[in-house]
Amino acid sequence: MNNFVFYSPTEFVFGRGTEAQVGALARKYGARKVMIVYGGGSVVRSGLLHRVKQALDEAGVQHCEMGGVQPNPIDTKVYEGIDLCRREEADMMLPVGGGSVIDTAKAIAAGVLYEGDFWDFYIGKAQVEKALKVAVVLTIPAAGSEGSGNSVITKQATLQKLSLRAPQVLRPVFSIMNPELTYTLPPFQTACGVADMMAHIMERYFTNTTDVEVPDRMCEGVLRAIVEEAPKAMADSQDYGARANLMWAGMVAHNGTCGVGCEEDWASHALEHEVSAVYGVAHGAGLAVIFPAWMTWMADHNVRKVAQYAVRVWGVPQTDDDKAVALEGIRRLRAFFVSLGLPVTFGQLGVEHPDVERLAASLHRNKGELVGNYVPLRQADSEAIYRLAL
Amino acid sequence: MNNFVFYSPTEFVFGRGTEAQVGALARKYGARKVMIVYGGGSVVRSGLLHRVKQALDEAGVQHCEMGGVQPNPIDTKVYEGIDLCRREEADMMLPVGGGSVIDTAKAIAAGVLYEGDFWDFYIGKAQVEKALKVAVVLTIPAAGSEGSGNSVITKQATLQKLSLRAPQVLRPVFSIMNPELTYTLPPFQTACGVADMMAHIMERYFTNTTDVEVPDRMCEGVLRAIVEEAPKAMADSQDYGARANLMWAGMVAHNGTCGVGCEEDWASHALEHEVSAVYGVAHGAGLAVIFPAWMTWMADHNVRKVAQYAVRVWGVPQTDDDKAVALEGIRRLRAFFVSLGLPVTFGQLGVEHPDVERLAASLHRNKGELVGNYVPLRQADSEAIYRLAL
Repeated sequence: MNNFVFYSPTEFVFGRGTEAQVGALARKYGARKVMIVYGGGSVVRSGLLHRVKQALDEAGVQHCEMGGVQPNPIDTKVYEGIDLCRREEADMMLPVGGGSVIDTAKAIAAGVLYEGDFWDFYIGKAQVEKALKVAVVLTIPAAGSEGSGNSVITKQATLQKLSLRAPQVLRPVFSIMNPELTYTLPPFQTACGVADMMAHIMERYFTNTTDVEVPDRMCEGVLRAIVEEAPKAMADSQDYGARANLMWAGMVAHNGTCGVGCEEDWASHALEHEVSAVYGVAHGAGLAVIFPAWMTWMADHNVRKVAQYAVRVWGVPQTDDDKAVALEGIRRLRAFFVSLGLPVTFGQLGVEHPDVERLAASLHRNKGELVGNYVPLRQADSEAIYRLAL
Repeated sequence: MNNFVFYSPTEFVFGRGTEAQVGALARKYGARKVMIVYGGGSVVRSGLLHRVKQALDEAGVQHCEMGGVQPNPIDTKVYEGIDLCRREEADMMLPVGGGSVIDTAKAIAAGVLYEGDFWDFYIGKAQVEKALKVAVVLTIPAAGSEGSGNSVITKQATLQKLSLRAPQVLRPVFSIMNPELTYTLPPFQTACGVADMMAHIMERYFTNTTDVEVPDRMCEGVLRAIVEEAPKAMADSQDYGARANLMWAGMVAHNGTCGVGCEEDWASHALEHEVSAVYGVAHGAGLAVIFPAWMTWMADHNVRKVAQYAVRVWGVPQTDDDKAVALEGIRRLRAFFVSLGLPVTFGQLGVEHPDVERLAASLHRNKGELVGNYVPLRQADSEAIYRLAL
């Protein structure tokens, strides 16, 4: 096990009706004026935005708002938000939504206190030293941004999709998680969220770090629970227990609970970010295509953990043939994704003829010669993995 | 799943050599003068106390100290600490040790800012509203106090062993966890720690709350990892990987990570607290005796979760006979404790003729007519469980 720091100071307020506490919590954490950030009209139509504002009003917390954040959130919306936040003098960001909305709010929170271009943080030109407080009302369990200090933004002009990690300053001070708010998620979006949270765990799980039995068992346990609960939420969108388990799984998948002390990989995410940046596909759907392909390549190049995953998560009988065990595990993962209505090939993703060379070239231009850690990938390896997803 | 709040704001700094960071961390969290609290001479002999002071000196943080905290820590030491802390005007408690030392430091941290008797917090006469900051250098993985807001103290005059929960104010601001510091733990103490952390998970796991697949799988996963790693630490006290896994397991067992959204039980802890208060046995050893007896009683009164535990943690083949499955799981748990050199009966604990009636009467006098939640125990039930441990 490697040395590590685990620091997850967010207050998670979980359960039915908890959005009614947003005003009191914002006050508790010192907000005078919050800037509500949201996406399309669903939080308006559902009445959630109205209830949030009401709770803020009752607690005497002022508010302003910015809607219209899109999936795969873009830099131009961040600039718009920074301007608004400065004009309105808001002192806390309050994203009401999923990962795109939260990540946009985090970028604004950091950018508003920075004299330069916020994009500096994403290209590694500057570190986030201070930021406005961020608090969350979560409506989509997937990205795990409600518990992480991370943010992913795409630069519209260049289609660069880059991520920022600032766990000491950008973790939400509180996150309200009411599983009922996810009842209206369409099946495809529910399934994409499942793929995303599973990927967050697997990026940590596939490691060469040894003596990590506690993190391994926790990763495997949460994965098994997701595999158990996801079909229930697909079958009955108002199954509270299934929605609750998925919502909590999405958080622990990404706040650091899973995979402590492990060198993490993140190649699959990087491979997918190129796909969603270029072809505009849903991140979770892209991961359902890319991650099994990545694992298949790993079955030939570093099979150990893939075989363990097959045995412990998917119940594949252990044999001496690690590669066969691993491939059977990958087969079961793909079958599970298919059962949720997710694509597992580029074709199913709606990208009939992906430009594999362009994707790999862009990936390594953005991320460097070697990508990932489980087996560091060269450009030719990345191309091979994209081809395994055809 | 029940509504819940999960709030674990402690910064856990984990790994080799991390105690060298204690000065910088104390400064970061605003300490001007820390009060070091420790137990017997082992932290002196090992040089740890010296290294801690050196790190504080280098960071310009003043310090005073109080040694001599005993296992099953007592109120008189808390009063001594409150006096010293007030005299020295320390503004942060720094326990260097295990649960007894940390719990004593937490009691001082709360008591020093309270005008009345600190014992008021333990008998429920007052709530802790403010406390000095507590930071930890952990040397014994067992109690989980390094991540919790709890403290257990025994009133010497009456042998009342009572616990306090104040998660919003008494959670450590940081906890330094270097597995190397546990190399010198004697085998029996290592084993007692294992029993204690397993018990912390099981108190949460045995619940009637439904739709808790994620917390269940996390509990089961950590238990399986402990069962895997403990024998390695017993066989080689300097097995870093095993020590590291056990140290982290002890923390997640008790900071709330396991069992979110579950109604918790805690009857076994209450049953054991009477035993250690009266007979002065090690808490972990007492739990190794009491918990299997409690489970055996539950196999007759609420078998469902005990059978699930047997299957998922101990690999007992599932059959239609839940009780038989449960009893086989309990048999394996007892065999595991025995393999670690732990007692599983009162006799092996060195208490040949426990006064079962007195223990049960005291328990229900302290805790009320009904104790626990999985099946609330009446006094006759508690007596029956004590008898199952004879």
